[in-house]
Amino acid sequence: MAISERIRKRIESASWIRKMFETGNALKAKHGAEKICDFSLGNPNIEPPDKFNSTLVDLLHEETAGSHRYMPNGGYPDVRQKVAEYVSSEQRVSLKGDHLILTCGAGGGLNVALKTIINPEDKVLVSTPFFMEYASYVDNHGGVLETVAGLDNFEPDIDAIASRITDKTAALIINSPNNPSGHVYPEETIRRLGELLEKKSRETGRLIYLISDEPYRKIVYDGIKVPPIFPFYKHSIIVSSYSKDLSIPGERIGWLAVNPETDDLHELMGGIILCNRILGYVNAPALMQRAIERLQGLSVDIGLYQHKRDLLCDGLSKLGYDFIKPKGTFYLFPKAPGGDDMRFVDALQEELVLVVPGSGFGSPGHFRIAFCVEDDIIKTSLQGFERAMGKLR
Amino acid sequence: MAISERIRKRIESASWIRKMFETGNALKAKHGAEKICDFSLGNPNIEPPDKFNSTLVDLLHEETAGSHRYMPNGGYPDVRQKVAEYVSSEQRVSLKGDHLILTCGAGGGLNVALKTIINPEDKVLVSTPFFMEYASYVDNHGGVLETVAGLDNFEPDIDAIASRITDKTAALIINSPNNPSGHVYPEETIRRLGELLEKKSRETGRLIYLISDEPYRKIVYDGIKVPPIFPFYKHSIIVSSYSKDLSIPGERIGWLAVNPETDDLHELMGGIILCNRILGYVNAPALMQRAIERLQGLSVDIGLYQHKRDLLCDGLSKLGYDFIKPKGTFYLFPKAPGGDDMRFVDALQEELVLVVPGSGFGSPGHFRIAFCVEDDIIKTSLQGFERAMGKLR
Repeated sequence: MAISERIRKRIESASWIRKMFETGNALKAKHGAEKICDFSLGNPNIEPPDKFNSTLVDLLHEETAGSHRYMPNGGYPDVRQKVAEYVSSEQRVSLKGDHLILTCGAGGGLNVALKTIINPEDKVLVSTPFFMEYASYVDNHGGVLETVAGLDNFEPDIDAIASRITDKTAALIINSPNNPSGHVYPEETIRRLGELLEKKSRETGRLIYLISDEPYRKIVYDGIKVPPIFPFYKHSIIVSSYSKDLSIPGERIGWLAVNPETDDLHELMGGIILCNRILGYVNAPALMQRAIERLQGLSVDIGLYQHKRDLLCDGLSKLGYDFIKPKGTFYLFPKAPGGDDMRFVDALQEELVLVVPGSGFGSPGHFRIAFCVEDDIIKTSLQGFERAMGKLR
Repeated sequence: MAISERIRKRIESASWIRKMFETGNALKAKHGAEKICDFSLGNPNIEPPDKFNSTLVDLLHEETAGSHRYMPNGGYPDVRQKVAEYVSSEQRVSLKGDHLILTCGAGGGLNVALKTIINPEDKVLVSTPFFMEYASYVDNHGGVLETVAGLDNFEPDIDAIASRITDKTAALIINSPNNPSGHVYPEETIRRLGELLEKKSRETGRLIYLISDEPYRKIVYDGIKVPPIFPFYKHSIIVSSYSKDLSIPGERIGWLAVNPETDDLHELMGGIILCNRILGYVNAPALMQRAIERLQGLSVDIGLYQHKRDLLCDGLSKLGYDFIKPKGTFYLFPKAPGGDDMRFVDALQEELVLVVPGSGFGSPGHFRIAFCVEDDIIKTSLQGFERAMGKLR
């Protein structure tokens, strides 16, 4: 046997995803890629702000000795400080550089956080629908991801979460703005989750972390504000990245911040920095650290995504699709006409429209449209959406 | 408790390293950093070749849409192909792009390889002295690193390795040129290790991988050639990086190549690409992938390191230190005068010379000097080396 049992099983259990992508690729080969409306990947189509490129060029011209060497595993101290200042303003809590590390994207940050806190067989909770990589990330470190069905409006079912917490619960992951639903938790939800975890930490005698994965914090519409996390629960960790708001997911740069009020802050940060090293990340890419130091608060023009959202929502609404208009992200998560998401995704494929079934996000009966694509693709796709619906309604 | 038991123990067991670095930092604060001869880190002091900077500038000027987006998890297909061609010439075996992935440095590549193949409680063997991070990397994925004492000349004890192989043995890691000894395995050693693993794979009924970690392949002296791995054992995996030969360890760019002759190649590569994704690396940094595509075969001026090696070896030799002159890397691994490496390292610290005890590499009684420092530091340090030896001999 060439690979471990665990990885073999993981490959098998993901075989439907592979099949889906293979079918998509086969369709592209057969009809030409330009004929396919591919909404399957959250790969931002908007180019990074011009200042990203010019900042990199500046940095390369200003370069001094040692610019590409190892730095401390947590990142350059001045970059940590600069990002901490920005996060302080978002979180309404005062962070210093030593409350934060630079990571290889939010994926790196999540793995670092989970490895630091998970004991064998620990449980990590998440409300559906959820980003499917969390299951792998928790499993990587010997934990088990437990899903709790979310409400129809994509809010968490706080009573259901409460009933699932035991002394084996290491953390609750939240992801708002949410992939795949585009839902944004209001402040009241964060407050109630914080109160619940506070109470349950007391009851179980175990410190339960709230891990907020928020790479889409800046991608929100209609003037909505994403509430902060830190003021509402002290045992909280935030991970984020510049992948989506600067459109640079290939560069793997993000951060992890710890609530300055958490117990045993020094021990927690020591564990986090150790895990960033021993997981093989070692440190976040050096040049990208120095770039984002100069780009705090910058993002692509979110209005472009809002326009795409409106184009798609208006079109699908007229066709009779049932969905909640997303408050953020570049995802829409409608109900699958006919109720069977796998079947509906197949029907859309026949119309050369590629989407991902909700089963992949723990929410069968829905499907995800990643609308980070050219406007023309959205317009073209509507015919396919119309025909697929006609078949299954 | 803020962190997992496992991470807490790991922090505790590494407390002497932390103490050592803290003492070093305290010395720098007290005496001024310029007074300290710091040989503790393998952080290359030679600047990257000018072409590295100019290539990055070129790439930024030539940039087209999508340059910083996600690409396939294994890396850009054309970069994979280009690196595979270069590795083919090093390995005397014909590799294609789909036998290789780009990774976040060799540390990333090792974690990907180990996660792909380790079943719970599996053993991974390594000959001493060895790079200490391997223990963490194997532990990350539920395996156990077993060390086998190497011979006095830093060659592996092949009979001892043979006696330790069971059906729980997943892999043997080799690292030649070696950190910390600077030793380079001759072709005969690779051939004998290959024969052993071939025989043991048959006997145990288990495919045992040879994992060659070779970031120092290009850093060798006196015209020595580092033998290839792939021709001598088909179940072999090579990981490497551009960290040391291009002096860019902060940028986290490397690769993992699989022997095209291995069994179940397709399954193995599928597992490797999956693990690169789910470990949170997702992909190697995009801009650095495109840079190294244009820099194949390039390295810093190795002659500069050879000069440092000779300066250090001549100096220590005159003082009566007992060591084997390294054939490669920028490390020297002498015997500790007096025999107790921890005590000798303390004595050197008193002379403001920082090195790492051999205990950290599974070889007590030695110490490691990382001579990737300015020549003046080497010259200055000799007085300290002289006085410390005087105290302990």
